[in-house]
Amino acid sequence: MSSTIQDVANHAGVSVSTVSNVLNGRSDRMGKSTLAKVEAAIAALNFRPNRVARQLKTGTTAMLGLLVPSIANPMYGFIAREIESIAQERYGYRVMLGNTYRDKEKEASFIDDLLAYGVRAVIVISSLADEKHIEAAMRHGMVVVSYDRRATPGATSLIDHVSVDNFRSGYLATRHLIECGHERLGFVTASGKTLSRSEKLEGFWSAVDEAGLRRHAQVIEIKTGSVFGDSDMADAGRQHAAHMAHARDAAAPSGLIAINDMLALGLMAGFHDAGLKVPDDMSVIGMDDMFLSSLANPGLSTVRLPVKDMAATMVERIIARLGDPAVTPSEFLFQPEFVARQSVRDFR
Amino acid sequence: MSSTIQDVANHAGVSVSTVSNVLNGRSDRMGKSTLAKVEAAIAALNFRPNRVARQLKTGTTAMLGLLVPSIANPMYGFIAREIESIAQERYGYRVMLGNTYRDKEKEASFIDDLLAYGVRAVIVISSLADEKHIEAAMRHGMVVVSYDRRATPGATSLIDHVSVDNFRSGYLATRHLIECGHERLGFVTASGKTLSRSEKLEGFWSAVDEAGLRRHAQVIEIKTGSVFGDSDMADAGRQHAAHMAHARDAAAPSGLIAINDMLALGLMAGFHDAGLKVPDDMSVIGMDDMFLSSLANPGLSTVRLPVKDMAATMVERIIARLGDPAVTPSEFLFQPEFVARQSVRDFR
Repeated sequence: MSSTIQDVANHAGVSVSTVSNVLNGRSDRMGKSTLAKVEAAIAALNFRPNRVARQLKTGTTAMLGLLVPSIANPMYGFIAREIESIAQERYGYRVMLGNTYRDKEKEASFIDDLLAYGVRAVIVISSLADEKHIEAAMRHGMVVVSYDRRATPGATSLIDHVSVDNFRSGYLATRHLIECGHERLGFVTASGKTLSRSEKLEGFWSAVDEAGLRRHAQVIEIKTGSVFGDSDMADAGRQHAAHMAHARDAAAPSGLIAINDMLALGLMAGFHDAGLKVPDDMSVIGMDDMFLSSLANPGLSTVRLPVKDMAATMVERIIARLGDPAVTPSEFLFQPEFVARQSVRDFR
Repeated sequence: MSSTIQDVANHAGVSVSTVSNVLNGRSDRMGKSTLAKVEAAIAALNFRPNRVARQLKTGTTAMLGLLVPSIANPMYGFIAREIESIAQERYGYRVMLGNTYRDKEKEASFIDDLLAYGVRAVIVISSLADEKHIEAAMRHGMVVVSYDRRATPGATSLIDHVSVDNFRSGYLATRHLIECGHERLGFVTASGKTLSRSEKLEGFWSAVDEAGLRRHAQVIEIKTGSVFGDSDMADAGRQHAAHMAHARDAAAPSGLIAINDMLALGLMAGFHDAGLKVPDDMSVIGMDDMFLSSLANPGLSTVRLPVKDMAATMVERIIARLGDPAVTPSEFLFQPEFVARQSVRDFR
């Protein structure tokens, strides 16, 4: 069984309050030999201060919650790794992880459990339009950072919003196809609306209208079994590409913008199954830049998110707001960057 | 601020012990109107029982630790999603996640924190040869399940071992190349030994010797920046493939077995960079069957792990052993399955 602070005091031959002073960094006015005796006793008994007891006193835990649609999606896995490493290495925080499958009930239940465990900070990767369940948590003192959704314009928010300029992502991807001479464009998205998807679509239409190509542009919505961007997303893209290849006529798009890399990789696999070549017969662009997209054949042109910077900002906001309630929530908007590889045919 | 049990009692006009009885399911002998008043007060005050206080009494937390080399590796992301979903949906357990980069210090520090938070169970995905730091945790009452490493033969272990038959994985992959008529074989692995890598290599040699092909077989060890199977692994494979393509002669392997899918995808990308065709000029087999491997061009032939079954077993072992200390640790060995796609040339 674990040792107690009393065991340490007995072993060192000092009082409990002396041990407590050492544990809490108040040893500057202590004799060197006393400090050495306490440290030796802590080592000998392999004593671990009971954080549960400590958190009962202070009401907080050096832990943060991280809510993702699905950690099996390599993009969320990448973000989660960055968040956990920064939280742990820079601030000594641990991470409690939950998969929510973009389900509001699961999100609410996870946040309830965080509160019950004394966790006072959570990073929410959700994109659900409705934030009521999150606002309820904030009324109980939870510090919330939201990823990949914008603040509501004009409204004062109690949430930090850390997101990428999704409009710009959609615009950059579409613009690249247009610059390469493509005139018939398709924007491929999954069924199930999220805010980030709507913004990317607006970026698409903006680039299309700028070039006067609306007459030849279309939105292709694919039904997926889930909306969390997982293997289902790739599978649905793959099936749909086979269907598109079969139904292709002179009015069909020559270039497709996929809502994310996972869908783009599925589309590419489906065209390959159907005997079409990417990019010779069909051009495809993704959005995210998962590291696996550079391994695709051909390499997937895409729009890169600054994941490391975004992860650092999310953790820093949590630490800052936990440390000082006067720090007000804010919006952090990061810019994406176009990455050209080999999945787009250049007609110029 | 959160309500207390006293607030609920005051609001309902009953005693604290009555509220406690309701919270702990001891309401069968309570008047219906009393029960209704307490439930109404709990709802009105949005009261959450304090699990921190509860865990101080019982000494345990409905949480388990999950230690992975890197959650950015899609294979670990997949396993982590299955573990978290099963733990949460079937047993109401939450998951504390840590990336350890196969670093013994990081593993030890994570386990220390789990103990300090009252967490009494951990799933360790590590493959480090040395388990001393884990054994220390067990002496403090931690239930440990280890993934992807075998029990030491003959020794009584305090750890549950859940793993796949890695020898068989190496054997199946190699056997497939031989059956397709390949006689010059290469086993490609990363620098940095893990137990699972050694077992896969033994499976390779077993199939090679069975076919009398040892004279033409070789092990190719690639230096990677890290040993946790992440993007570095794919990058290293990609660079090495370019080098192999350049140095190719009549004695070079016609077929490669990669230690995992990530390395296989990197090798394929590197051969493509160098103008070699997979499988016409070079055959490649992976091990793992990440869902992304089916999207590769060509589709990657590989050896599939039964991830869902393994994840369920790991969680079930934890629940069983936490519930009954008399349940003794055991070994669970799962069988892999060969998955043929298009990355191997058939010479028959």
